[in-house]
Amino acid sequence: MTTSNATAIPTPNDAPVSDTGAAGIDPSLPLRDDLIGEEPYGAPQLDVPVCLNVNENPYPLADAVVQAITRRIAQVAPTLNRYPDRDHETLRQAFCDYLERESHTSLSVGQLWAANGSNEIMLQLFQAFGGPGRTALGADPTYSMYPEYARDTFTTWTTTPRNDDFTLDVDHLVRAMHEVRPAIVMLTSPNNPTGTVLPMDALERVLAEAERVEVAGSSRPTHPIVVVDEAYVEFRDPGTPSAVSLIDRFPHLAVSRTMSKAFAFAGARVGYIAANPSVIDCLRIVRMPYHLSALTQAAALAALEHTDEQLEQVGHLRRTRQETAAWLREQTYHGKPLQVAESQSNFLLFGGSFADRTQIFDELLKRGVLIRVVGPEGWLRVCMGTEEEMATFRRSLAEVLPLVR
Amino acid sequence: MTTSNATAIPTPNDAPVSDTGAAGIDPSLPLRDDLIGEEPYGAPQLDVPVCLNVNENPYPLADAVVQAITRRIAQVAPTLNRYPDRDHETLRQAFCDYLERESHTSLSVGQLWAANGSNEIMLQLFQAFGGPGRTALGADPTYSMYPEYARDTFTTWTTTPRNDDFTLDVDHLVRAMHEVRPAIVMLTSPNNPTGTVLPMDALERVLAEAERVEVAGSSRPTHPIVVVDEAYVEFRDPGTPSAVSLIDRFPHLAVSRTMSKAFAFAGARVGYIAANPSVIDCLRIVRMPYHLSALTQAAALAALEHTDEQLEQVGHLRRTRQETAAWLREQTYHGKPLQVAESQSNFLLFGGSFADRTQIFDELLKRGVLIRVVGPEGWLRVCMGTEEEMATFRRSLAEVLPLVR
Repeated sequence: MTTSNATAIPTPNDAPVSDTGAAGIDPSLPLRDDLIGEEPYGAPQLDVPVCLNVNENPYPLADAVVQAITRRIAQVAPTLNRYPDRDHETLRQAFCDYLERESHTSLSVGQLWAANGSNEIMLQLFQAFGGPGRTALGADPTYSMYPEYARDTFTTWTTTPRNDDFTLDVDHLVRAMHEVRPAIVMLTSPNNPTGTVLPMDALERVLAEAERVEVAGSSRPTHPIVVVDEAYVEFRDPGTPSAVSLIDRFPHLAVSRTMSKAFAFAGARVGYIAANPSVIDCLRIVRMPYHLSALTQAAALAALEHTDEQLEQVGHLRRTRQETAAWLREQTYHGKPLQVAESQSNFLLFGGSFADRTQIFDELLKRGVLIRVVGPEGWLRVCMGTEEEMATFRRSLAEVLPLVR
Repeated sequence: MTTSNATAIPTPNDAPVSDTGAAGIDPSLPLRDDLIGEEPYGAPQLDVPVCLNVNENPYPLADAVVQAITRRIAQVAPTLNRYPDRDHETLRQAFCDYLERESHTSLSVGQLWAANGSNEIMLQLFQAFGGPGRTALGADPTYSMYPEYARDTFTTWTTTPRNDDFTLDVDHLVRAMHEVRPAIVMLTSPNNPTGTVLPMDALERVLAEAERVEVAGSSRPTHPIVVVDEAYVEFRDPGTPSAVSLIDRFPHLAVSRTMSKAFAFAGARVGYIAANPSVIDCLRIVRMPYHLSALTQAAALAALEHTDEQLEQVGHLRRTRQETAAWLREQTYHGKPLQVAESQSNFLLFGGSFADRTQIFDELLKRGVLIRVVGPEGWLRVCMGTEEEMATFRRSLAEVLPLVR
């Protein structure tokens, strides 16, 4: 178990952001002690031909969706002098409708909540349930923003290791739950950066166990909230259930989602969460008033009206992932085939034994292909691009692999 | 001096939000102990004919601006599958250009930063410079969100009282600065809910004094950051300087602004801050990556291209304030003229001796006029609406004043 007390743990060897200028901060400014030397989070934003580093959907929006967004924005624009609907009820209903369709789960407006990206959803969760004296527990390797949410809210971030194949080590996690008595158990399905899906039986076991854990740092008997981050869930194999189907049975379950990935809407910053209405009410206490602009609400509604167009590339990207995984497994590094983590997402973690993954990253970048140095040592992550982008990636990697240490 | 340790202080008699449903939160959820019983912040969002409660600009956007926003959104919409520019440099340059024009102050992109409303700017300031063991110091009565930012970041919120005319009691504040050694000194000009402007000589004295204060809860010698919240600054009388003119002289000064008010852009949620580049770098450490959507950036740029149209009602609203203040001073309550705080904003705090201000609020609401119960006991706040809205307000208040206790 790895623990940090209210400080950020960079995911091992995550690419540092070197263009930040944060190094030379005036020492007389009262920056929090634990933030000294910290760098702003984020992958480098470089202008290269093939960007496969931040798990975006590579396909631009369909004309019909662009028109719908423009139309809705034109409708709300004259009234931008007024504050937006603080509770964004129309949008929350649209997410209910979407989940009914996508996950065959019927939820009410009171069980939904949206924010500026799942980043803000997570921050609100940590603000409501974390804080000094409280712990959030995850399973490494996992999404490298979690320690940042913890740091920003003075929450201790603790992890248990995953199995060698990156599946959740449920026994280990359950033991850690009883040991650290976390306020938040943070699970991710499909997991980032590994793509690993969390099976429903494993999740149900964690949820049942959470009801037997008393949270440390709580003045009264409370049980952990179990957050399942489903940012990439639409890319899972057909027939795989979503955690939203368990919300009615487990009042401490919260399922976070985003429109950034499958929905091709990263630029609009729309995340949402489904949970028991009491969980939503907790988030409403800490949310900034009017956090979701009228523009965001209008654009998200337009995109949700066009779910078919917005999601039309998901099946194609799933096949691209399958084909790319198969291709990667045929490639060799120092005479041995590359490893590829089993992924149900739009990205693949591959390699497993790279002696110097930064060298591979740099050589690919020289060829105009930007991927991500993230996850455990020896691995690299690539997200699925267009056909042309993937062809460039394959050609470049095939060139690079024989060259590197 | 009034202090609260990491808990919210509702501004005295601020209208509670009663439609939240937050009361019945599942007690087994690990909601932070200090949030139990808290209500989500915000004035009631009621559908009434005359809304004069949240200091919005009452005039809808001009057609030219609506068209510019729609055009820019149509341009970015196809690429919403990609993340936005995390550092929003084009928008920051547009704010530089605006401040050059509006406050005759030349700043560089590194001295500007934007976020989803000044709410998020403030949250980032408190996240970077506040935290457990640290204090933010303000002067009451002031904006009722400040205690919320403090609560959400585990910062202690402390206030000194203002003078009877709501001007800043600089001597009192300076004494408190040396006593509590705050990390953040929070000033507001024009102040909300009083409309009071902070004179430059008072601000310069606070800034000079801040350089002699060593922040409590900092492991190294640091001096407080002095934040001036200029949300309503465009409504000040012509010729009154803005605090942005002092940024180059005082590296610990940060001036927060918003497009919500004069700019008639509350629905778009765009706040910004001007400060030394080191202050901005501190905010960049705690900001959520990609916090500002491509939609927000595009719409804000469009509005800033049309500064003249967006600000065209400011002069008119200033005159409305002057006329309304004069009219209010002619009204009597129990035989005595109403008091009106000297305001350089788009709202007026009036009354001063109302025995039951909630009764007046309710009677106005019955007549379709929504104002705000906020600020010290005995006072009410009204913001400037259109000619027609103000006529309804005057007619309704004239009816109500003779009726009430």
